Amino acid sequence: MAANTLGEMFRVTNFGESHGPAIGCVVDGCPPGLALDASDIQAELDRRKPGTSRHVTQRREPDQVEILSGVYEGKTTGTPIGLLIRNTDARSKDYSAIAETFRPGHADYAYWKKYGIRDPRGGGRSSARLTAPTVAAGAIAKKWLAEHHAVVVRGYMSQLGPIEIPFESWDQIPENPFFAANATIISELEAYMDELRRDGDSIGARIEVVASNVAPGLGEPLYDRLDADIAHAMMGLNAVKGVEIGIGFGCVTQRGSEHGDEITPEGFRTNNAGGVLGGISTGQDVTVSLAIKPTSSIRVERDSINKLGEPVKVQTLGRHDPCVGIRATPIAEALLAIVLMDHALRHRGQCGY
Amino acid sequence: MAANTLGEMFRVTNFGESHGPAIGCVVDGCPPGLALDASDIQAELDRRKPGTSRHVTQRREPDQVEILSGVYEGKTTGTPIGLLIRNTDARSKDYSAIAETFRPGHADYAYWKKYGIRDPRGGGRSSARLTAPTVAAGAIAKKWLAEHHAVVVRGYMSQLGPIEIPFESWDQIPENPFFAANATIISELEAYMDELRRDGDSIGARIEVVASNVAPGLGEPLYDRLDADIAHAMMGLNAVKGVEIGIGFGCVTQRGSEHGDEITPEGFRTNNAGGVLGGISTGQDVTVSLAIKPTSSIRVERDSINKLGEPVKVQTLGRHDPCVGIRATPIAEALLAIVLMDHALRHRGQCGY
Amino acid sequence: MAANTLGEMFRVTNFGESHGPAIGCVVDGCPPGLALDASDIQAELDRRKPGTSRHVTQRREPDQVEILSGVYEGKTTGTPIGLLIRNTDARSKDYSAIAETFRPGHADYAYWKKYGIRDPRGGGRSSARLTAPTVAAGAIAKKWLAEHHAVVVRGYMSQLGPIEIPFESWDQIPENPFFAANATIISELEAYMDELRRDGDSIGARIEVVASNVAPGLGEPLYDRLDADIAHAMMGLNAVKGVEIGIGFGCVTQRGSEHGDEITPEGFRTNNAGGVLGGISTGQDVTVSLAIKPTSSIRVERDSINKLGEPVKVQTLGRHDPCVGIRATPIAEALLAIVLMDHALRHRGQCGY
Amino acid sequence: MAANTLGEMFRVTNFGESHGPAIGCVVDGCPPGLALDASDIQAELDRRKPGTSRHVTQRREPDQVEILSGVYEGKTTGTPIGLLIRNTDARSKDYSAIAETFRPGHADYAYWKKYGIRDPRGGGRSSARLTAPTVAAGAIAKKWLAEHHAVVVRGYMSQLGPIEIPFESWDQIPENPFFAANATIISELEAYMDELRRDGDSIGARIEVVASNVAPGLGEPLYDRLDADIAHAMMGLNAVKGVEIGIGFGCVTQRGSEHGDEITPEGFRTNNAGGVLGGISTGQDVTVSLAIKPTSSIRVERDSINKLGEPVKVQTLGRHDPCVGIRATPIAEALLAIVLMDHALRHRGQCGY
Repeated sequence: MAANTLGEMFRVTNFGESHGPAIGCVVDGCPPGLALDASDIQAELDRRKPGTSRHVTQRREPDQVEILSGVYEGKTTGTPIGLLIRNTDARSKDYSAIAETFRPGHADYAYWKKYGIRDPRGGGRSSARLTAPTVAAGAIAKKWLAEHHAVVVRGYMSQLGPIEIPFESWDQIPENPFFAANATIISELEAYMDELRRDGDSIGARIEVVASNVAPGLGEPLYDRLDADIAHAMMGLNAVKGVEIGIGFGCVTQRGSEHGDEITPEGFRTNNAGGVLGGISTGQDVTVSLAIKPTSSIRVERDSINKLGEPVKVQTLGRHDPCVGIRATPIAEALLAIVLMDHALRHRGQCGY
Repeated sequence: MAANTLGEMFRVTNFGESHGPAIGCVVDGCPPGLALDASDIQAELDRRKPGTSRHVTQRREPDQVEILSGVYEGKTTGTPIGLLIRNTDARSKDYSAIAETFRPGHADYAYWKKYGIRDPRGGGRSSARLTAPTVAAGAIAKKWLAEHHAVVVRGYMSQLGPIEIPFESWDQIPENPFFAANATIISELEAYMDELRRDGDSIGARIEVVASNVAPGLGEPLYDRLDADIAHAMMGLNAVKGVEIGIGFGCVTQRGSEHGDEITPEGFRTNNAGGVLGGISTGQDVTVSLAIKPTSSIRVERDSINKLGEPVKVQTLGRHDPCVGIRATPIAEALLAIVLMDHALRHRGQCGY
Repeated sequence: MAANTLGEMFRVTNFGESHGPAIGCVVDGCPPGLALDASDIQAELDRRKPGTSRHVTQRREPDQVEILSGVYEGKTTGTPIGLLIRNTDARSKDYSAIAETFRPGHADYAYWKKYGIRDPRGGGRSSARLTAPTVAAGAIAKKWLAEHHAVVVRGYMSQLGPIEIPFESWDQIPENPFFAANATIISELEAYMDELRRDGDSIGARIEVVASNVAPGLGEPLYDRLDADIAHAMMGLNAVKGVEIGIGFGCVTQRGSEHGDEITPEGFRTNNAGGVLGGISTGQDVTVSLAIKPTSSIRVERDSINKLGEPVKVQTLGRHDPCVGIRATPIAEALLAIVLMDHALRHRGQCGY
Repeated sequence: MAANTLGEMFRVTNFGESHGPAIGCVVDGCPPGLALDASDIQAELDRRKPGTSRHVTQRREPDQVEILSGVYEGKTTGTPIGLLIRNTDARSKDYSAIAETFRPGHADYAYWKKYGIRDPRGGGRSSARLTAPTVAAGAIAKKWLAEHHAVVVRGYMSQLGPIEIPFESWDQIPENPFFAANATIISELEAYMDELRRDGDSIGARIEVVASNVAPGLGEPLYDRLDADIAHAMMGLNAVKGVEIGIGFGCVTQRGSEHGDEITPEGFRTNNAGGVLGGISTGQDVTVSLAIKPTSSIRVERDSINKLGEPVKVQTLGRHDPCVGIRATPIAEALLAIVLMDHALRHRGQCGY
């Protein structure tokens, strides 16, 4: 019944609201002996943090993480790692008007129906701000996977609305604010975003995440398959409406003689499977694609209702990401790392792993 | 650590191999008082059972279910429901040759790497035959959802390889062997399948599943969101490579002013969200799309390796579905029903539900 | 939400009713490669089976187990092991009268209040008969623990009502129907039981269970400590009202200078701790004591009420154990083995284990 | 795999070390709408806090709790409640000497064997200080149980070493530092404790916990019975070596005609069962007894070994409770409240509950 906990053996329990005193998580199940410092986690938090370019929300949050437990003399001890991030730039006045209204595309209505009460400040619990603790936990998973299994988890934006972004090089990603693996397309993306912002509108995006050096054998069929758990984690990310493994929906028009990846003594010839067969990793790259819906908070006026069921016009001002897909890349990487570490621990000690 | 268990409060624990003595499951968490008879379950099993048309595997399995427990005088008692299906048409000789070889697209290699041992007969544990217990459990969920909440879960094939199948009417689905909601396209589908079979090849498909009358409030954010759990269940189904909720990957090119479903006093205007916002049901239809890869068992010769790492040619004869997508519709319905019932029970007793 | 599942990594999901078609369980998480045959399980089932002496219930159940899955060519494959035991000697007529009445000491009233419906035949789900699948699963755990870690799990009755049974030798246990580790006291026990049976009454008992060669390091604090999980499993056994680890309630009057087991280069000097400190095994014998209440089904007439709340006299005839504690020893062993195997798997791959 | 999480639907995830920056927990699953203020929690924390009399440790910890999330405008919102307690009186120098040594009766050796690394300051993770977050979570459970179901959870010390403490009145408990429900025995207890302190030794204790007004129907057989989960929670509390429900070990010498609680139209005549039959609450008081071992930290010199396996003499100075049983009462109450709330939520919406 892990509503706010992700994972089985590497468990991330998330708490907090967008404008409450703090957000954070408890990471349970990290093995002892991993060198860990707040700066390891901070580096990943800084990748998703707001205010880093004009194309994302201008909320100013340092997202400074404090390690509360589980680390002694610079090493994890096998006990739970408490992580705390204080909220500092919470402007509650921006949100007072929307407490009585349900914004289209937002979780307002659903939360109201489920709980009968909700914290409306900045989206409360449903805010994308709550992905910060996930990223913090993912930083631990990334470090452990890298040190113990040489696994590398990376992601990039492959499409911004109508603009496809061809993959050129991993090296390009930190050089632009879009997590684009491409240098030449940046000005086109910037122009598109500037126009979108002028329109007060938002746009969807497509994200790719790839894990390399994943050992074969991870995944627990029948139901807790590696691909199933990846889909669970990714579809649980705010704004995601679709998840693909490997070729994804491209398989619909493939024949079996084209889709099934042939094996040679040197390895697999292709990777339509996305590194997972029968729910178990094969040793190939694990490849995942995500569809991210456009931000629901837009200046464009929309029809909705209030708590009384009366029609209202809704226009969302304030500081918002016009494309939540931009900051989604480090979050998706964190989620993939968490799932992989969870399955690595589940498989630990078996068949020579 | 529920490798072979699906769900939290409505829990399905699956066991069995394709050619072992029996397959089945234990359904834990079904509330007391539901009228339940083997025939309720049998009806759903018959929808997915092999040998019903020339377009699916010719294996002859009656898939007769026996209720072992949990029902007294025709009603569930709240205790676990044991379900048993004996394997009857298991021809082990068909499979002896493949024990030493890894078939492309199959789980053979991955199982070998994970467990170091595998039952090669008919795919063993990784066989799609193991979806039968899932369908049996789903029949219980469907019945309970219908009786207690008037929820209707239905599905259809919307694309067979290159052929899109426009939705015309739910009534058409039982009239053809493709689960197509369309009468006019059947002959085209049959011709396509006949040619495919002559080629000894297979093809992918796209499936839609829809749940109507789902109450608002189901889903447990942050991580056990309704859409996340649907994605987990669906991506865990054999051969699925992609899952969409609502508009799915179509959201990538949408603007926020187009995507966000406006609300009126009469209800939502559109359903891009697929009935889920913030991970919680909104009361709209829950809509899910699946990409099903082409069957890996084909007569077309392919390159692979054996256990010794030596190159081999693989050609899979025997009785196989040339499009596993055809029989996937009732399975996907069962999975959606299981997830919905699980979340209905998790939400039970809250906010008037 | 594992109402009918015991364990996290070694998971036993139990189903069945005393007089339904069958009882059984699904054992999920047994590692691949363990040699396993139905006879391995049958041997333990035969130790708890009814009708083996005049001091236990005369119900005639062969308790023949069938392995339905998870074993291929005599070895486990890492997939779920389905175990089935058909009920054969179910005399429903014996129980028809009690359907409307709540027997003192029995679960009748509680089940009625919880579920609003119950299978009254032989106690239905609350029957001690449902410990048979637990014993079957425990047989697998015992075998795996013995083969992989040389762990030996043994138990004996240390007190039958007022008669304390001094431990003399493990060898005596199979020589008498009481699981007494003592040869000289048997005639006294038999005389006591014969008189009890004449009185139509029943009696409590005290059971000891010991696991030797348990490696240090098993147990998952803060909450899933080894002793906590043992207490959970044991208190969950029908009729158990008390559980002790090590010295147990004897510690209440001990001083710290007496209780704390001193350590020497040759090992611990005493074992007040019962092999567990801080919730983690120390390498000493894990010792557990259980208090088993007297059987509730007795011929002595007692006061109770029926479903309408009216006063009734209840006298339970039929075939019952006058001391359920007698057959509890193999069940308690099975439970300890299951918990230890579960924790062994949880600790697997860590710190050289 | 909830090593540091207690409960299924009401879930408490604990983090922290005795001398780290902070301790705390995340409480997931508290229903929305409960009025909750830090003072509600503080009141319970103050009952267990150190330094309140000369008979407990003189460590000075205000144990001031901060609510980080899950409460909006004074009410719970159904989202996780983050609770934080900063450590303030952590004197690391007291503990530096023991890092290389295993104290008899302590978890030092077991943690070392399990994790290969441990935080030795004040017992690190194994310190009884980590019961503070449990008490904080229990305060929420107590409040919810009281407001929604009128359940009252109370406890008292019934034996201090050799001195039995007869129950006289619930009113006496807050009047003395021993949680004794008895006024006349206090001076005897104080004299005993003073002498014990002079000896530098410690002593065991027996605690009783009682929950009144528990509705019938709570508990999830077969394995997650109410009594089983109570035993799990209680045996998981530091220093507990034995748990009884109802008559407990007293049942060993009872006959069935004495033990089985007779039912009349006015209710049960006795409560040997301790309010639980078949693992399900009956509506009677749920009664639990605990055996608490003597504190392991004593001034009396004891034999042990260091990490190198060499013999050493160990004498523990510093600030310690000479009877950890004294402060165990509010913790045991908290644990019982957590288990009851968890089961109340599991049963919610069923059979009119």
